[in-house]
Amino acid sequence: MSEKLNENNYLRFIAGDFLRSPNQINSIFESDAELIDIGNNQVLAVTYDALVEEINSGLYTDYYQIGWMGVTISISDLAAVGANVLGLLLDLRIPLEFDLKNIDDLNRGIADACRFYGCFILGGDTNHNTKLQIGSTGIGICQNNYLKRVGCNPTDVVYTSGKMGLGGVYAYQKLFKNEAGLFLPKAQLKLGQLLCNYASCCIDTSDGFFPAIGQIMELNKVGITLEIPITTLLHSNCEKICKTNNLPSSIFLAGPHGEYELLFTVPLKKVCDFEAYAKKMNQLYLRIGHITTQRAFCKQNDQCIDVFEISNLYGKISNGNLQKYLEELLSLIKKMKL
Amino acid sequence: MSEKLNENNYLRFIAGDFLRSPNQINSIFESDAELIDIGNNQVLAVTYDALVEEINSGLYTDYYQIGWMGVTISISDLAAVGANVLGLLLDLRIPLEFDLKNIDDLNRGIADACRFYGCFILGGDTNHNTKLQIGSTGIGICQNNYLKRVGCNPTDVVYTSGKMGLGGVYAYQKLFKNEAGLFLPKAQLKLGQLLCNYASCCIDTSDGFFPAIGQIMELNKVGITLEIPITTLLHSNCEKICKTNNLPSSIFLAGPHGEYELLFTVPLKKVCDFEAYAKKMNQLYLRIGHITTQRAFCKQNDQCIDVFEISNLYGKISNGNLQKYLEELLSLIKKMKL
Repeated sequence: MSEKLNENNYLRFIAGDFLRSPNQINSIFESDAELIDIGNNQVLAVTYDALVEEINSGLYTDYYQIGWMGVTISISDLAAVGANVLGLLLDLRIPLEFDLKNIDDLNRGIADACRFYGCFILGGDTNHNTKLQIGSTGIGICQNNYLKRVGCNPTDVVYTSGKMGLGGVYAYQKLFKNEAGLFLPKAQLKLGQLLCNYASCCIDTSDGFFPAIGQIMELNKVGITLEIPITTLLHSNCEKICKTNNLPSSIFLAGPHGEYELLFTVPLKKVCDFEAYAKKMNQLYLRIGHITTQRAFCKQNDQCIDVFEISNLYGKISNGNLQKYLEELLSLIKKMKL
Repeated sequence: MSEKLNENNYLRFIAGDFLRSPNQINSIFESDAELIDIGNNQVLAVTYDALVEEINSGLYTDYYQIGWMGVTISISDLAAVGANVLGLLLDLRIPLEFDLKNIDDLNRGIADACRFYGCFILGGDTNHNTKLQIGSTGIGICQNNYLKRVGCNPTDVVYTSGKMGLGGVYAYQKLFKNEAGLFLPKAQLKLGQLLCNYASCCIDTSDGFFPAIGQIMELNKVGITLEIPITTLLHSNCEKICKTNNLPSSIFLAGPHGEYELLFTVPLKKVCDFEAYAKKMNQLYLRIGHITTQRAFCKQNDQCIDVFEISNLYGKISNGNLQKYLEELLSLIKKMKL
C-alpha cells in the first residue's frame, strides 16, 4: 500500500522544494503576506487565500457573508504587513445551476467589502465547480516600510487591535447551536498602515488568538506574559455564551477560526508616541502584555499556558471532525485549568 | 421557481459591478494579465488562473502535467503582456487521502516549470478538497513597455509564435481516443518580452487559435486576412491525426483548449526590424496574415471564416458535454466547408 497524505505531513509535502526568489524579503511563515523588493524603495505585498473548508464545514452558509469574507481574508493579510492595497484578483468556483439570487448576494458581499476597504477588483478567474468556493489574491504596496511577524524583542509591549473571541464565538454558535448571526469582521487595514512606523512585529488573528501568540513566540524565540485577565481580553459577547453553555471562556481564544484583528508589539521607547498617535487617529488598541526572554512561555499570573498544545489540537483531529475537536479542546482547557 | 444561472448569463453575473481601479491600464478583457500603473515607469502585471474543468473533465490526469500546467497557465498570461516574472502564488486544493507519490509528481511538475521559466514560488494557500485543483497567481513587472490585446491597425502583419493545433490535438486524443502523450506546452515568456518593442497587440492562444483571432478582431474592430493555408498553419502532428480519424484539419484550431503560443501583430514599418531581431535572438515566428479594415471578417482565399460561431459553440453546449461539442463542431466545420 502506498503512503497516504495525512494532516500531519500535509504542509511538509505541499511546500515542496521550490526555489525562493532573491527579491523576497520574508522567509516562509515570516509574514502574513509575501514581501517582494521591487526597487525604488517599494515593496510589493502579495497573498492568496481561499475559503474552502469554511464553506464545506458549514461555517459560512450565507452568500453575502461568503462574498465579504472572500475579500476580507486577503485584505487582513495585507493589513498585517502594513500595505496599501492596489486591488484584488477574484477566484470564483460556482455550481452551474446556481440561483441568480445567490450570485447577487455573493456579489453584494464582495462589492460592499471592497467599498469598505477602498479596494478594487482587478480581474480574476471564474470556473464551474460542484461546490461554491471563493478565493482572492491581495496585491498591495508598502512604501518605505512594512511589518513582519518577526522583529520583536524582550520588553516590547504586546497589543491587540481590539477584544478577542468573536471568531470563536461565531464558529461555536454556528456549528454547534445553529443560531449565529452574520459574522462580518473588518480587517484592520488602516491600523496596519499606521503601525509601520511603530510596531516591531505584527500578525493577524484569523486563525485565533492563541495560534497568533504561538507563532510570534516561535518565530521570534521569545515568551509572552499576559498582563490582563482573559475575561478582560475577551469580547463581552463571549462571557454571555460561556455562561449559557457552561463553557470556559478561554475556549474562544483557541482557533482555528479567529476574529481578523491584529496582534502586534511595540518597543518600549515608541510606546508613548504610538499610543498618542493612535488616539489622535481614533484607532482602538488594547495593551495586553509584554515580550519576555523565556522562550515559548506564555504566562499569566505565574500560570503557564501551553498555547502550542491548544493551537496544534485542531490539526491532530482527523478529517476535521468538529464535534471531536470541541470535546478534546474542552478537556484540554479543563486539564490546563484555564 | 427562481432563475438559475446558465452558461450564457454566467460571465455577466460574475463580473458584478465592482469598482475599477484608476491605476488599472487595461479595461476588462483588453489584456491577458491585469496591468496596474505603480509609478516610476513601472507597470505591475497580475493574473490568476485555475485548472478546474480541465481536471474534472479528464483532460489532465497526470499529476506531473497538472503541476506543469498550473504554473504555465499564469506564466502564459504574463508572457502575453510582455512582463518579467516576479513569481507565483500557488493555490492547491488536495484531497486529504492523496498518495504521497502523487504529491511528489505534482511538486516535480511545478518545480520543473518554475525552473524552465526562471520563476519562483512566493507563497500561496493549501486547502483540503474532495477533488484535486490547482491555481496560480502570476505576478510580473513591465519596465517602460507592455502589450495589450488592443492596439493593432489595418495593414499590421499578423504572426504566431509557432505552428498551431497541438492543444486541440491533445484534447481530441485524450478525451476521445485515450491515447494522448503528455502535453507540456511552454509559455512564450522570452518572446513576449522581446515583442514589447515591436508588437501592436498580443494574445495567447490558450483558448485556441480561432478564439484568439476572434478576440483580436472584436477588441480592435478590425478584420484579419490569413495569407497561408490552414495546413501550413497547423503543426505536422495534426495532419496525421486528421487522416487517421477522417477529420477536417481546422477542427484543431477551434478551442476551447489551445496551445499556449502567442498571436501578435507588428506594424509594417517595424516588420523588418522585428524579424531581424527575432532571428538574431533565435526566436521562432510564423507570419500568417494581416489586419484589414473589414470589421470582424476573417478571410482566407476570399473565403470568409466565421470564427465567432466556432468560438462560441463550446459555451452553448450545456454542461460541457464533450461528445456533443465534437459532433456539433464537425457539423459546423463541414457546413462552413473549412
